[in-house]
Amino acid sequence: MVAGFAAKGLLLLGLLSGLTVGQDGSKPLYKDPNAPIDDRVSDLLDRMTIEDKMAQLMQGLVENMKMKAGSFYVGYPVPWDWIATNVKKAQDYLIENTTLGIPALVQTEGIHGFLVGNATIFNSPIAYGCSFNRDLVEKMAALIGQESSALGVNQLFAPVVDLAREPRFGRVEEMFSEDPYLSGEIGYHYTVGLQGVNVSTTVKHFAGFSQPEQGINTAPVQGGERYLRTTWLPAFKRAIIDAGAWSIMSSYNSYDGIPTISDYHLLTEILREEWGYEYYVISDAGATDRLCNAFHLCKSDPIDMDSVTLQALPAGNDVEMGGGSFNFRKIPELVESGKLDIETVNTAVSRQLRAKFAMGLFENPYPAAPESEWKKLIHSREAVKLARELDRESIVLLENHDDVLPLKKNADIAVIGPMAHGFMNYGDYVVYRSQYRGVTPLDGIKAAVGKKGRVHYAQGCERWSNDQSGFDEAVAAAKKSDVAVVVVGTWSRDQQELWQGLNATTGEHVDVNDLSLVGAQAPLIKAIIETGVPTIVVLSSGKPITEPWLSNATSALVQQFYPSEQGGHALADILFGDYNPSGKLSVSFPNYVGDLPVYYDYLNSGRSIGDSGYQAEDGTLVFGHQYVFGNPNPWYPFGHGKSYSTFKYGAVKLDKTTVSADDVVTVSVDVTNTNKRRDGAEVVQVYVADEIATVVVPNKELKGFEKVMIPAGKTKKVKIQLEVKNLGLWNTAMKYVVEPGAFQVLVGSSSDDIRGNATFYVE
Amino acid sequence: MVAGFAAKGLLLLGLLSGLTVGQDGSKPLYKDPNAPIDDRVSDLLDRMTIEDKMAQLMQGLVENMKMKAGSFYVGYPVPWDWIATNVKKAQDYLIENTTLGIPALVQTEGIHGFLVGNATIFNSPIAYGCSFNRDLVEKMAALIGQESSALGVNQLFAPVVDLAREPRFGRVEEMFSEDPYLSGEIGYHYTVGLQGVNVSTTVKHFAGFSQPEQGINTAPVQGGERYLRTTWLPAFKRAIIDAGAWSIMSSYNSYDGIPTISDYHLLTEILREEWGYEYYVISDAGATDRLCNAFHLCKSDPIDMDSVTLQALPAGNDVEMGGGSFNFRKIPELVESGKLDIETVNTAVSRQLRAKFAMGLFENPYPAAPESEWKKLIHSREAVKLARELDRESIVLLENHDDVLPLKKNADIAVIGPMAHGFMNYGDYVVYRSQYRGVTPLDGIKAAVGKKGRVHYAQGCERWSNDQSGFDEAVAAAKKSDVAVVVVGTWSRDQQELWQGLNATTGEHVDVNDLSLVGAQAPLIKAIIETGVPTIVVLSSGKPITEPWLSNATSALVQQFYPSEQGGHALADILFGDYNPSGKLSVSFPNYVGDLPVYYDYLNSGRSIGDSGYQAEDGTLVFGHQYVFGNPNPWYPFGHGKSYSTFKYGAVKLDKTTVSADDVVTVSVDVTNTNKRRDGAEVVQVYVADEIATVVVPNKELKGFEKVMIPAGKTKKVKIQLEVKNLGLWNTAMKYVVEPGAFQVLVGSSSDDIRGNATFYVE
Repeated sequence: MVAGFAAKGLLLLGLLSGLTVGQDGSKPLYKDPNAPIDDRVSDLLDRMTIEDKMAQLMQGLVENMKMKAGSFYVGYPVPWDWIATNVKKAQDYLIENTTLGIPALVQTEGIHGFLVGNATIFNSPIAYGCSFNRDLVEKMAALIGQESSALGVNQLFAPVVDLAREPRFGRVEEMFSEDPYLSGEIGYHYTVGLQGVNVSTTVKHFAGFSQPEQGINTAPVQGGERYLRTTWLPAFKRAIIDAGAWSIMSSYNSYDGIPTISDYHLLTEILREEWGYEYYVISDAGATDRLCNAFHLCKSDPIDMDSVTLQALPAGNDVEMGGGSFNFRKIPELVESGKLDIETVNTAVSRQLRAKFAMGLFENPYPAAPESEWKKLIHSREAVKLARELDRESIVLLENHDDVLPLKKNADIAVIGPMAHGFMNYGDYVVYRSQYRGVTPLDGIKAAVGKKGRVHYAQGCERWSNDQSGFDEAVAAAKKSDVAVVVVGTWSRDQQELWQGLNATTGEHVDVNDLSLVGAQAPLIKAIIETGVPTIVVLSSGKPITEPWLSNATSALVQQFYPSEQGGHALADILFGDYNPSGKLSVSFPNYVGDLPVYYDYLNSGRSIGDSGYQAEDGTLVFGHQYVFGNPNPWYPFGHGKSYSTFKYGAVKLDKTTVSADDVVTVSVDVTNTNKRRDGAEVVQVYVADEIATVVVPNKELKGFEKVMIPAGKTKKVKIQLEVKNLGLWNTAMKYVVEPGAFQVLVGSSSDDIRGNATFYVE
Repeated sequence: MVAGFAAKGLLLLGLLSGLTVGQDGSKPLYKDPNAPIDDRVSDLLDRMTIEDKMAQLMQGLVENMKMKAGSFYVGYPVPWDWIATNVKKAQDYLIENTTLGIPALVQTEGIHGFLVGNATIFNSPIAYGCSFNRDLVEKMAALIGQESSALGVNQLFAPVVDLAREPRFGRVEEMFSEDPYLSGEIGYHYTVGLQGVNVSTTVKHFAGFSQPEQGINTAPVQGGERYLRTTWLPAFKRAIIDAGAWSIMSSYNSYDGIPTISDYHLLTEILREEWGYEYYVISDAGATDRLCNAFHLCKSDPIDMDSVTLQALPAGNDVEMGGGSFNFRKIPELVESGKLDIETVNTAVSRQLRAKFAMGLFENPYPAAPESEWKKLIHSREAVKLARELDRESIVLLENHDDVLPLKKNADIAVIGPMAHGFMNYGDYVVYRSQYRGVTPLDGIKAAVGKKGRVHYAQGCERWSNDQSGFDEAVAAAKKSDVAVVVVGTWSRDQQELWQGLNATTGEHVDVNDLSLVGAQAPLIKAIIETGVPTIVVLSSGKPITEPWLSNATSALVQQFYPSEQGGHALADILFGDYNPSGKLSVSFPNYVGDLPVYYDYLNSGRSIGDSGYQAEDGTLVFGHQYVFGNPNPWYPFGHGKSYSTFKYGAVKLDKTTVSADDVVTVSVDVTNTNKRRDGAEVVQVYVADEIATVVVPNKELKGFEKVMIPAGKTKKVKIQLEVKNLGLWNTAMKYVVEPGAFQVLVGSSSDDIRGNATFYVE
């Protein structure tokens, strides 16, 4: 979604001329909630003119409702009552004053909260991906849905199940993980949670979007059909098919030279014919015009609207979002001239109508609560509490030397760094000025310490500057403290500031060629460490940062991806041990930008490493081969995350070792929390390696996980089920097959910390 | 080709028991040079036992000639007479003492010279790719062939038409260019030159080899079928089909999950069925075993030899190189048991026999000259002269501020830097201790200056160290000079040292995650610049180096990719203006490793750049978006290279503007050398952009070039022909089509310096 187009059309509502309905007084079939959906769809379709159909296939109310009435967008920083009032007006108008009374989809963003001012802001997707907590994500989505529908919004452009496989890309923070399985699980539960309250998800961006060449926004993606099917599509299938998502957003990119928006193979052969998807696909903002002005598949000055429509719609991109030329206006003319088959239009319209019926929109076109209830439904105590809970479960403890953490509250604590206070370090996709609302790290630490200890704050430096003039104050704060907490990282902006171009280091259209800390931040850390005061560094960021020296130079290292509005409390919960850290990295951290890509699930034959060279502390160059100076392994591997407890794994057991493709294998392992005083949660991770295959497969793949709370000193038996049918590959004939042979089950605490294994055989 | 297996079998020749031939005294058809090759092949095939066939399909004489007799490898640092004598013995043995008398292919390396001690060493492929000189490359190949056959070697593992699209990869220096067209042209002329003297080329590495994940040797390559066909295959087709190469080497990598060595689609459907290739494919050293031990497509402990054979041979990999388990020993047993169709074996054998007949091997099994002629044929005056000529045409003048170059000879000249003297900075694929033979930069400059001027040499630093203790001496040398020439860069090793693991920064299995200068080299340059003496930096390297500050900090900047044995003379020819520089970069230079990949022919929609941020000299951070700090455009673009002349381009004219796919369009442009005193050569480059296509195509593609010498002050009309049939694309149905519409012809002095354009239309 790019900014720059406004739903000002809402203001035009009063100008619209009306069309009357229900002339004969009888109730048409499509209005019967008890009729089968397919019958309702075909009944309604039969009643629609070509203009009615066109109107359903275009987003926005920019010109008039006759032209574009299927959906409209309300993602702007406006008061609640403005939204509610105008949505109501629009729906009422559509229902009462148009021939057929088809209610609209009312849309906004929602990847980590309902994109409206003062709704609850949850932590960013890359953050809550690290929670590995399906239940909390589902609850979050339900609460986001509750907040949305309270004002009449019935569709959110979320979840993002793209994979974070290219950390230079500005949008990494919008994704859950580099891993297909984890992304699919989080996307599935987001969808179930949101649609459970009858708000439609729009699963995006379909597909292969997020490994753009050079890390540049909307750049082409290179990859083959097998990579697409093995790696990119499974998370989509999980969130779309298994969870029953009511819509999908196609992506901006091309994949192997075909724009996804006009990719018949992807949008029709795979999505509809193979997967059986019955609902609709909407383009991203301005994406239709890109067929001409970016991909050069049509004339672009002016945009060849006929060509755009004829490329996108028959390929299976049913609905056109705004932000471009509104090319689908050409539908009636193209049908009239015979260039576009009316059946193509009917199919597209049917898919959207099917979604509207399925979500109960005709029966409940305006789900909004009365104004008196908004405060109970939006930014509720429950939502705020969940934001904190999810946030603290997402924080990853990377290092904890000599158990410096948790901190004591009755101490002098320095809080330092540009991300420690002054603004909320939210990720992209929050509304204007959101950053001035929420609990900063300083706020959270102060609240936790209360009157037991003393907090000494110094900013140290601005995030956007090399200026070190604030270091003295920061060093002084550290010197009078028992411990220093330094909060540094990347930053994004709210939707308005970001697209205005204010400085940022992550977010949509903000791409980097380096992943190290910007400006004076790394020198600030060094200055604090040099005081000799134990230094805890908190990385507050939207993507992996590459500062591997931090591992051993700091006393503790904590990763908090972009926080919720309760971020400071969540961080304090971790730092002081009120919550025992349980987050696990959902992305691998590279040592250096020159090592990319470093995802853990590289194909067999990959990452074949000789010796890794380095520069010794005295400047001696120690030469290696992979690399001459460097190491292609990650700094921190996928799945890594420490706890204040230690978890001991017992032997891995399987309930069966000879299976067929229809079987379910139950993996069980006893996990003991060896900490006698502290309860703790462990994410038990199950990876599977297909030992011998007919094509080259990933060296291992996450295929199951459970986050289990284990009381102090206790042991829990963890059982994780593997459906054998999910362990297939795309063979040389590009058929999906579960091949006979040995599968190794690797159970571990991270992708690189395997604690036990067992093997089963598919017959 | 990996090292580590030796053709020690040659020593075993005396132990072999003999088989007699010609029992009935009649001359079989296959020995008749006038019979059609196909008849000779089938006649011979009919006479062969399964063991005879197997013997043809394996490289090496390691065990005995009964088992493996099709080819053997002699790439070792041994005296000429040792090779000649033993090759002769082996061929004599095969002809006289085996039933059928099939001579062997006698193989070694030859990417920039016959890989035998004291043969002529030409500059590395990445270097002579920059010459853009088809004729000189063809002459070079013919001379390499002459040197090879003088000792009885009849096959070289060259040319490499892989594309240099991943600069981190250690083998970049072995490739001609990032560009498919230029690589194809150089590969074509190499093949024509070498095979013109009846030495077989082995075009490698087929295919898609050289963009390995993370830049790591032999790692998987991700890419789709369209990328393979559009970008990777054209250079192969040009060198293989158009030039009639007698053999191909398959590659180590997988492409989209299929190892190329067992890729039926690539090796059979494309290579044989589409292209009609009649000769054979040999695996790379040890590559067959990788099916099991790297790709995990079979059991690896021990190697499942049956499986390897059944995967590689029927896919179209006809011959197995050594370096592994010699899996093809299983052929007789597999045929016997019915697991392997004898027709598959016959096809493979026929392909190799066809090559042997085509190259006249039966008529001239031992092409070697008598020992008395070796000195005339090997390392001849002609070859040495050509090495210098090709080398100087390959040197690229990147910058020349205030016309500091060419230098005067009657001057004090400081020559500084670890690559200036002490060893020859050759690329990979030279024999043991080659580095101690050749003309260093210091040698060349001294020879050019003669008694007219004074040369002051100081090493400054070791290439492998941060030690700056030699800087004082270097600074002193600069201070007493009128100008300083600083030679720095990357380095590789001879085949023995490289595989022993001696330090190096480029070469096979030496991969980097950073492209900047190593150790004290950049500080050394700075120290010399600070003297205020005009400083010319010469980058002596096997790949692009990323030090963009050099552009304006130096007085002149010269790129000399790994040199020939005449490298110092060639460099002096440029520096003193005895030759007017004419080389053009065959690869784009990135600003930073985090920008990769930066090839010029990115797909439409790629490299969409907002503003590029940077850190100002005073430390101010100026924020941008693509990138936040950085620029995705190259430091120096593909095709860039300055001259001491300036070339003015006239209007671009086409002989026709409405054409069919069978037409040839002649592009003509008048180019004027505006320098009144100096002759100069310009590489006129013709790029084509398909304005509107049905799939996403490269933004532009080199489709023609001519290197033209233009006398001082004169104008030449340059005519370049474009075959319209070569301007097609691989459409959504993966069919090759030249689409109707407008094609823009862009004529320029580099990919980023387009001087004129014209448009034609395909009907």
